[in-house]
Amino acid sequence: MKEIMAIIRMNMINKTKDALLKEGFPSFYCRKVMGRGKKKVDFSIFDTSLNVEDLASSNIVGEIVETQRLIPKRMISLVVNDEDAEKVVKTIIDINITGNPGDGKIFVMDIPETIRIRTGEVNEEAI
Amino acid sequence: MKEIMAIIRMNMINKTKDALLKEGFPSFYCRKVMGRGKKKVDFSIFDTSLNVEDLASSNIVGEIVETQRLIPKRMISLVVNDEDAEKVVKTIIDINITGNPGDGKIFVMDIPETIRIRTGEVNEEAI
Amino acid sequence: MKEIMAIIRMNMINKTKDALLKEGFPSFYCRKVMGRGKKKVDFSIFDTSLNVEDLASSNIVGEIVETQRLIPKRMISLVVNDEDAEKVVKTIIDINITGNPGDGKIFVMDIPETIRIRTGEVNEEAI
Repeated sequence: MKEIMAIIRMNMINKTKDALLKEGFPSFYCRKVMGRGKKKVDFSIFDTSLNVEDLASSNIVGEIVETQRLIPKRMISLVVNDEDAEKVVKTIIDINITGNPGDGKIFVMDIPETIRIRTGEVNEEAI
Repeated sequence: MKEIMAIIRMNMINKTKDALLKEGFPSFYCRKVMGRGKKKVDFSIFDTSLNVEDLASSNIVGEIVETQRLIPKRMISLVVNDEDAEKVVKTIIDINITGNPGDGKIFVMDIPETIRIRTGEVNEEAI
Repeated sequence: MKEIMAIIRMNMINKTKDALLKEGFPSFYCRKVMGRGKKKVDFSIFDTSLNVEDLASSNIVGEIVETQRLIPKRMISLVVNDEDAEKVVKTIIDINITGNPGDGKIFVMDIPETIRIRTGEVNEEAI
């Protein structure tokens, strides 16, 4: 199995969720992260939905060096069968691509074992 | 080494922590995640401890399609020696199994290298 | 590629970010986690910047058994080329080592595939 982990814009989480459900991938989890990429950040193009609490707790309000600022992002993660990995990656790209810096990244990892707690089913059965 | 990553109900984190400590696994970290599984969600059986803030910040309040709602869950993660992985998985299952949908899932991943920052110890020594 | 995932003290995130940027690693993400290590916790030596909200939401306020308390920590994660992994690990250790328990741990994982959403670049090109 593969874990597909994508870091995307905050305001893309619902669209991404809907697209994955439509393609037959209802199971996933997501979480808040703070992140930055390689490029200088131009804040004018960013989501305006900054979470003030997150910013405050990371001590990034009032930082002087703009290029080092962290941006609130969402991480979405799915574990799928190997043969579905490419389709999931494509679905996430198609929904999240805007062509602007900050669209995000996708990481693909091997997951040797998955267990569903309720039934004890493993691997393909547990996904 | 293996990383054992489990997504469990919010209200099971303390019991799980206690069970792992009792079995000799005191080191772990956990975090809030939002997730959903394969099945339609019957909210009557879910924890009532929904975190309103998380819900609001994920824009999932007021969604119409109930089956797509995300549920606040806890993720717990331990890195253990290969030979302890099965025991940790069993401990987590035994504590978290209720037989109802939403009990959660466990993922097992390979961790090639671990370092304790304070001492520079690596791998088995660092766990 | 390798994912370097470090669990560090809350108040070390900015210093760590600056050190990694200086060494040529600007891209990363971080998140709040709650964690504990192997040792009994001596709270007098810990960061005083405890996040009351996190504590409350984890039901750990008012716990009796002090040794089981979870500490708010920060997790920082970078994906880098294999040949850069050692340098990143060393940079994180150098900044975070105080010699006291709670300095944290570093985990190194294999990441078989990385994709930049905006451009479709993969692996080395996407880092």
